[in-house]
Amino acid sequence: MKKFLNDPNNFVAEMLEGVHLANPGKYKLVPEFNLIYRADRPDNSKVSVIQGSGSGHEPAHIMTVGPGMLDAASPGAVFAAPPVDTCFACIEALKSDAGVLVLINNYQGDRMAWDMAIEMAQAMGIKVEKFIINDDVAVPDSTYSIGRRGVAGNFFVMKALGAAAEKGASMEELLKIADKVNSQVRSFGVALSSCVPPLKGAQLFDMADDEMEVGIGIHGEPGRRRDKIKAADVILDEMFDAIASDLPFKSGDRVAIMVNGLGGTPISELYVLYRHAHQRAEAAGMTVVRNYVGEYCTSLEMAGASLTLLRLDGELEKLLAAPAEIAMRIF
Amino acid sequence: MKKFLNDPNNFVAEMLEGVHLANPGKYKLVPEFNLIYRADRPDNSKVSVIQGSGSGHEPAHIMTVGPGMLDAASPGAVFAAPPVDTCFACIEALKSDAGVLVLINNYQGDRMAWDMAIEMAQAMGIKVEKFIINDDVAVPDSTYSIGRRGVAGNFFVMKALGAAAEKGASMEELLKIADKVNSQVRSFGVALSSCVPPLKGAQLFDMADDEMEVGIGIHGEPGRRRDKIKAADVILDEMFDAIASDLPFKSGDRVAIMVNGLGGTPISELYVLYRHAHQRAEAAGMTVVRNYVGEYCTSLEMAGASLTLLRLDGELEKLLAAPAEIAMRIF
Repeated sequence: MKKFLNDPNNFVAEMLEGVHLANPGKYKLVPEFNLIYRADRPDNSKVSVIQGSGSGHEPAHIMTVGPGMLDAASPGAVFAAPPVDTCFACIEALKSDAGVLVLINNYQGDRMAWDMAIEMAQAMGIKVEKFIINDDVAVPDSTYSIGRRGVAGNFFVMKALGAAAEKGASMEELLKIADKVNSQVRSFGVALSSCVPPLKGAQLFDMADDEMEVGIGIHGEPGRRRDKIKAADVILDEMFDAIASDLPFKSGDRVAIMVNGLGGTPISELYVLYRHAHQRAEAAGMTVVRNYVGEYCTSLEMAGASLTLLRLDGELEKLLAAPAEIAMRIF
Repeated sequence: MKKFLNDPNNFVAEMLEGVHLANPGKYKLVPEFNLIYRADRPDNSKVSVIQGSGSGHEPAHIMTVGPGMLDAASPGAVFAAPPVDTCFACIEALKSDAGVLVLINNYQGDRMAWDMAIEMAQAMGIKVEKFIINDDVAVPDSTYSIGRRGVAGNFFVMKALGAAAEKGASMEELLKIADKVNSQVRSFGVALSSCVPPLKGAQLFDMADDEMEVGIGIHGEPGRRRDKIKAADVILDEMFDAIASDLPFKSGDRVAIMVNGLGGTPISELYVLYRHAHQRAEAAGMTVVRNYVGEYCTSLEMAGASLTLLRLDGELEKLLAAPAEIAMRIF
């Protein structure tokens, strides 16, 4: 395994410990549940925005906890939904008079765990709602999902809701914003390599040296087809066309573009892809208002990238521009 | 090749175009020389801080141009020093009454190109000085360097000088700060995989599935030895010991820690490494004042990481905390 790894069973816990140590005073860590939340825990008048899904997608969502983003994250093992007691512990730790809003990417495992935890919490009188994200246009159903998968578009839901919640938006207002973002965001991913889950210790799937998976899921789920690797612009064209035709995005749209690395692809290549995504958006008459080039939702060390387009309006532009702080920093 | 790539000959130019498009209004791009510089070019009273080295180390240093960091970057081809005319064009474009300060990582190719360009510029009456960075403790001399190599510690030189220059420091003051940072910063890298330079189209070097290169250079130069991959904490211990004993760092030191990914290692693993680096520093009686976990100086898609320690004082702490903006953003 080409990994920096101690006991694979401790991978998630050690990563969380690293995040905790790297951000002194900023987070509370509950090792028993792999639960991490803002040390400046919002008061009861603020809706708590939380997420818990499989690990292996970092920075999503362990490292995206902070003011203006998530209030807490409760990751499961790599590519595995968090256990129900973890989900429940997260809801209970973050309960608030204004309520707890759980953001769930659309995978059956995550939905099941959170549904049970939410039911338990509601039975105890805790106010909690959920919102399902399903931005991946690649396939209508998938190995682990009924309906479209939730992938990197999740970032925009977290960012918009984190900003709105910080300003005191109510549960009803947040659900409306979530619905707006999710209905206007579309993603599509391409993998150039597989990845090695620590406990498995072997490639998640086999892929030849000259092959790519077009429409890959973030847990290695099959996409639309296996194909020979093409030129970057040709790959980007297919991603862009799949997304743009789906909403559809159209001339006059103000958009945010995200080129997201899947973990093993260097930022140099992401900027090569961004170049053509920007050109395509402008050629289609869109105005590129914001852009995001880097790693937002990964699959361990998988080589690959996803493209996300989000249609903006005045409200979303303000929310995306609002300040936010997370574990991951440059300076 | 597991790469998003068009014509390999256009790789650097297309990446630069992507950076330029992703930052509207912020950069001027001179495609003829692969030269990129701040659009808000400082006036004549500010020293211009510039760097030009081989590409393939992104974000260093193409994406680290911006207020409070570099004023310009003039990258060469992947793992190749920039041509002399590129270096000269960069100096000339950034000339200032206060002078131009060229930061050079210690590789003979870069030194030769810049020495010639500096001589040409000085002959034309342009005020220009250079500073050599050599923070890598792994080997005393290397394939491409006489003396120690310059690696990720370069970030701290750029950051400190960028901040000081922005506040109006003179050339003499900047050279003093550069010398302080370089004399107090130490790095050590470990590679778990090779990487594929676009034009070569094949692995830079061979390495078995269970092997690592201890003390790797950022162009794949050999380090101290080839070894079997060990547990993350064991690898970190060797990196930490090599660095800490070199300065030497000692109890009572206030330090910045950087865990830098070499391009193909996901941030989850970097936080596993950071966890133990932080523990080691604290156990040795150091105070960890700042930390940096992510990609700062890479080798294309190489799996691996480097550890950097910088001894701080009041002046450096202020300079590192000063605001800066670069091409790479999270939000």
